[in-house]
Amino acid sequence: MIGVFDSGVGGLTVVKEIKKAMPDCSIVYFGDTARYPWGNKNAETVQRYSEEICIFLIAQGVEDIVIACNTASTFAGDYLRKKFPKINFFNVIDPVVDRIKLELSAEKNQKRNIRAGVIGTRGTIESRVYEKKIKKNNPTVGIISQACPLFVSMVEENMTSHPAAKIIVDEYLKKIKKAKVDFLVLGCTHYPLLEKVIRKSIGNVAMISSAKEVAKELLRRKNIREDFKEKDIFYFSDVSNHYDKLTRKILGKKIKIIKKAL
Amino acid sequence: MIGVFDSGVGGLTVVKEIKKAMPDCSIVYFGDTARYPWGNKNAETVQRYSEEICIFLIAQGVEDIVIACNTASTFAGDYLRKKFPKINFFNVIDPVVDRIKLELSAEKNQKRNIRAGVIGTRGTIESRVYEKKIKKNNPTVGIISQACPLFVSMVEENMTSHPAAKIIVDEYLKKIKKAKVDFLVLGCTHYPLLEKVIRKSIGNVAMISSAKEVAKELLRRKNIREDFKEKDIFYFSDVSNHYDKLTRKILGKKIKIIKKAL
Repeated sequence: MIGVFDSGVGGLTVVKEIKKAMPDCSIVYFGDTARYPWGNKNAETVQRYSEEICIFLIAQGVEDIVIACNTASTFAGDYLRKKFPKINFFNVIDPVVDRIKLELSAEKNQKRNIRAGVIGTRGTIESRVYEKKIKKNNPTVGIISQACPLFVSMVEENMTSHPAAKIIVDEYLKKIKKAKVDFLVLGCTHYPLLEKVIRKSIGNVAMISSAKEVAKELLRRKNIREDFKEKDIFYFSDVSNHYDKLTRKILGKKIKIIKKAL
Repeated sequence: MIGVFDSGVGGLTVVKEIKKAMPDCSIVYFGDTARYPWGNKNAETVQRYSEEICIFLIAQGVEDIVIACNTASTFAGDYLRKKFPKINFFNVIDPVVDRIKLELSAEKNQKRNIRAGVIGTRGTIESRVYEKKIKKNNPTVGIISQACPLFVSMVEENMTSHPAAKIIVDEYLKKIKKAKVDFLVLGCTHYPLLEKVIRKSIGNVAMISSAKEVAKELLRRKNIREDFKEKDIFYFSDVSNHYDKLTRKILGKKIKIIKKAL
């Protein structure tokens, strides 16, 4: 059983890709909907919430945990590894950075002045985690970053098709659009749920998001235990009326949600 | 000392009016910024958060508590009264309903088909609390309600002057604007902080918000203890960089914020 957690439904984009890559694996998911969004909270708060969730997931018997949230990967990745040394943690940032490294090495010397756009929560963007990690491998890449603080709320509110969504996305992406980036990193697991409207806004730019890359990383690493006989379980710390629809839209099937306050 | 709490900074609009009405009173404020927004959470979660905050406020010595949040007033008002029978609770809804009753009785027979717009969080609007309470006094008033789920995040994100703000406000207020309401109830303590942009969107419509009405109610009620010698204290469960600016903008002065996780 693999534990996966996020501030809300965003991590389900990761679950979907894990299930595609490993259809027989079983997942125990925790979405902290009672305390989302995390993207504008400080490191200490995100660490505390993440730790509480990991204690819960470990009590459910998981030994592998996917931190399916960029903000938590940024602020709590190292913290959790120290707190729970026996657990294999997977964050959503490193597999994306590795993928970019690979892509750029393939293009080596073919293209100059490569520019990457990175969008994420305020926490992720202000930490400059993607910028530092990408530039470590590829110092010449130009990074244009933009925090998009309302995106997570728009997703959790199921407003991705709302007329306001396009306007907000246009507003946030102005700078990145102007910079004519070669690719765009969706640095938050909620953002693939806004992909259509981001696509409309930014046009035909390659997008890289965590979900697929993390699923590949899980497949690649040998130490995942394959006791994949159990059913998936989805815990949310708060359940509003629209979560049935929203989770069905993301996963393409109805799931049973268990309310679990921490 | 009067306890005041909210999911975040919205309740500071109430604090400001209490201090205007009673300059010598001292306030202990709790803004649950680590767990905002509350407006889309279910009743049980809002009750649990409110109870935890009240336990904290009571431990600080308060005997009067202002529930400076419409969602908490809606979902947790009765619950808190039962849990803490010795505390005088003030909610932010009843004083507004009383004010409307008074206004309409003054206008009696002068105007027909009065229409009121009510905006609030999804929790407040779906509960129809304002609609029921206003219609109890004035059954003929037409109520046009609209949930505005992103408004609280826009305020907490200090985005009230952001270009996207006007667009989002326009979008949410379409129906109410079309209905040509006689007045608009700002049914969330965060919304006065969007007053300028709401005003631009809706034009010259009378707005009624909780802050002033609650302050009047506090003055009116005799049982407020007047041991107003202490300094105001402001606790927030999470403190991001922009809260210094944001709270100064709201209260017109710098405050010292104490971080206190519950």
